[in-house]
Amino acid sequence: MLNETISTVSASEEVRSAATLDNFFNPKSVAIVGASATPRKLGTIVLENMALQGFKGEIFPVNPKLTHIGALQCYRKISDLPVIPDLSIILIPAESVVETLKEHAEKQIKNVIVISAGFKETGKEGERLQDQLLAVAKQNQIRIIGPNCLGIFDNASRIDTFFIPRSLIQRPDYGGVSLASQSGSFVGHLMDLASFEHLGISRVVNYGNRVDVDECDALYYFAEDPKTRVVGLYLEGITDGKKFLNAAAYCTSHKPVVVLKTGKHESIDHALTSHTGSIAGRYTFYKAAFKKSRMIEVTSEVEFVDTCKAILSLPRARGNRALIVGHAGGLGLTVADLCISEGLQVPEASGDFGQSLREGTLSYASVTNPIDLTASGTDDNAQFIFQRALVDSDFADIGIYLALWGLPQNSERIGDILSDVMKKSGKPIVVATLEGKKCVEKRFVFESKNIPVFFSLERAVRVAKHLTEVPSYS
Amino acid sequence: MLNETISTVSASEEVRSAATLDNFFNPKSVAIVGASATPRKLGTIVLENMALQGFKGEIFPVNPKLTHIGALQCYRKISDLPVIPDLSIILIPAESVVETLKEHAEKQIKNVIVISAGFKETGKEGERLQDQLLAVAKQNQIRIIGPNCLGIFDNASRIDTFFIPRSLIQRPDYGGVSLASQSGSFVGHLMDLASFEHLGISRVVNYGNRVDVDECDALYYFAEDPKTRVVGLYLEGITDGKKFLNAAAYCTSHKPVVVLKTGKHESIDHALTSHTGSIAGRYTFYKAAFKKSRMIEVTSEVEFVDTCKAILSLPRARGNRALIVGHAGGLGLTVADLCISEGLQVPEASGDFGQSLREGTLSYASVTNPIDLTASGTDDNAQFIFQRALVDSDFADIGIYLALWGLPQNSERIGDILSDVMKKSGKPIVVATLEGKKCVEKRFVFESKNIPVFFSLERAVRVAKHLTEVPSYS
Repeated sequence: MLNETISTVSASEEVRSAATLDNFFNPKSVAIVGASATPRKLGTIVLENMALQGFKGEIFPVNPKLTHIGALQCYRKISDLPVIPDLSIILIPAESVVETLKEHAEKQIKNVIVISAGFKETGKEGERLQDQLLAVAKQNQIRIIGPNCLGIFDNASRIDTFFIPRSLIQRPDYGGVSLASQSGSFVGHLMDLASFEHLGISRVVNYGNRVDVDECDALYYFAEDPKTRVVGLYLEGITDGKKFLNAAAYCTSHKPVVVLKTGKHESIDHALTSHTGSIAGRYTFYKAAFKKSRMIEVTSEVEFVDTCKAILSLPRARGNRALIVGHAGGLGLTVADLCISEGLQVPEASGDFGQSLREGTLSYASVTNPIDLTASGTDDNAQFIFQRALVDSDFADIGIYLALWGLPQNSERIGDILSDVMKKSGKPIVVATLEGKKCVEKRFVFESKNIPVFFSLERAVRVAKHLTEVPSYS
Repeated sequence: MLNETISTVSASEEVRSAATLDNFFNPKSVAIVGASATPRKLGTIVLENMALQGFKGEIFPVNPKLTHIGALQCYRKISDLPVIPDLSIILIPAESVVETLKEHAEKQIKNVIVISAGFKETGKEGERLQDQLLAVAKQNQIRIIGPNCLGIFDNASRIDTFFIPRSLIQRPDYGGVSLASQSGSFVGHLMDLASFEHLGISRVVNYGNRVDVDECDALYYFAEDPKTRVVGLYLEGITDGKKFLNAAAYCTSHKPVVVLKTGKHESIDHALTSHTGSIAGRYTFYKAAFKKSRMIEVTSEVEFVDTCKAILSLPRARGNRALIVGHAGGLGLTVADLCISEGLQVPEASGDFGQSLREGTLSYASVTNPIDLTASGTDDNAQFIFQRALVDSDFADIGIYLALWGLPQNSERIGDILSDVMKKSGKPIVVATLEGKKCVEKRFVFESKNIPVFFSLERAVRVAKHLTEVPSYS
């Protein structure tokens, strides 16, 4: 184990507790309280999304006014259900939720997602309702996600309780990244972005007011979850620093965790308080906590997606020395500047080693690093440099390849070349490119080899930096 | 005049000197020495690109081995030309360039672009050739762009001497931004990016080894050029600090200049030296020079394009207080964090003013700034906030609108609303969005009103910051 303070933490209780979340993520049967057939109602959209997501278990719509929704039988109330569903999703107005939850308790339902808004986030009366909700849950050992949340989107178990139509927010494909988010709007739009960016997603949970299930539960659950290979966490504020630190350390001792914290600056605390009723607190504490638990901190939604994607597909970097290879002097220098600004090293290829790089490049190529193969350089030149500097020697820990397609002699072989070097060296190569027509067309050259492509030099360099922050799990 | 040290600088000589550049940018007749009909030869590509660019003047191909290229008569040598062309483009091997230049001198040709490589950038022998080239030019008052350059791409006069086929590097549409770049690869690929990003370009010049015409000439010329409204400058190193500072100050006293400097870090000086034979020098000098001359410094190719685009279309910000408006709490907070990190203020809407914002928003909206209209908020709510905080009051200097299309009640009216507020207030509104399918589809809503859209929160925030750095020209 990488972090010694982690392995000595006994987390058995928390892990057991997190196991009670399994019915949220892997239910065999789901009740939908407030299911509807009226266009644009939340209960209609969620029912539709469950179908579109391809949920294979049983669905029990609950609505006193309907006997059927489509082919599904509809139930008047929870007590009428023929079985005890593994999970119930509540979509009815806030003032009826507590009463409904009591019926859930009688039916012995143990996992409930309360999508409904109108609780603590709306003021005193809502806070009272939320307290009652929590009391009923505690008394009956019911685990609750929400209220005021989107719930769960799951590509493994095919759950989708997000009440946003797919025409407005696309759903991402299946993959190894699981996300936990306090903010619904953040994670909702992030799914759209993940879909656009081809980031493979396993499970997503948004707990909104998080009366019960919170980021700590998610971290323990994802730590143990075989479907999850990388965890992404969006955080506004936490309530128990020690609990968070333990959960974070436990999760990062199993798999990499990427974190985006907002509300960093005290001058906007006012906005955070009114947003989800939590206090951001001193950012310095969070920063220290992320560092101590070896979470990988990012600062924007794009960097969040990019970093998750890179960690999912590329090996970690064992050091921070970058080799930059391309066919363009000025852009290579820009990459070098960005690397140094981000704390990476750009070592000079000097002496005998530097001379040896001339053997497989054009006489007028610049081979001191950044390497400019020149506009006449070939894929063979690139292969030679990567092989010599990453495989045959330990000149650098990470490669950055500047993929520009404005040159006739560049071929699609480069995908295989980079893939092969990564296999042989165990070192990552980050592909940086520009958002031009040809470069976008050619992204498949790399993506078909499972090598992500970053459409800005800065995005690529940030990713390279974060790859140096990934813990070792060997 | 904004910068008092500028208006007292007598720049008449430099401006007169820059006027001799006019035949580069506005020639009526062009000789192409080394024009060819052989596929993929540079002389073929440049001739083709001049035609594709729609040059309306006369073209005189020069090649001793051909009598015609297509419908054009081809001349054996420069002395055979029936007129004195305004501009000559030389594409023949380096070792023959000096001899050819002497023929140009005899023919009284005063403006020559030497595309050919093989000069100082290749070593001692090349340096000797370059010195000879310069001597002939000086002796005969010939202005030279190059050698080892792409030359000029011009959407106003329809010149394109770039030897990269359009199938590999797209050409941008016409617009008010002119670019000067030491690096050919940088500016070549930037044209591709500008095309993809719909950045309107007027003139582009790449001077490579800059034996004569350099960034200072370009700055004086663009300062006086009526087609140029914003100048973008890519810089590696300069040779004369005082000369540069004067040119920069002169140009920024006429129009905004965006600058990207590479080779910032001494640890990569080795790469810069071998790249274009210049020394980057201390970055602190450059940083001070940019600040003193009120150039707007950016750090990446994407920020370069974004900033040019924003300055071209949006009013400058007269202060650094940002109003953030959107329908998403978490993403609004992310924007606020990024703003503060970039040195913008996010003032709290408190007291009576804060209360007054409640009049036109939903009861559960968060109106302290960042403003979260909530997922149920409407375009009317957004209009109300912008009107009150930017037009009716001076709460902020700049607006950032978070355009997310995952909400059914958001309409295309928002384009008109933002446009109207900007007209009334004279303040800029920067549109931030995510790269999701719907958001990309809807970019036209803003772009049809000449409002640029930035597909990442960080890109939008950086642009907002740079709008506060634009000098006043009123």
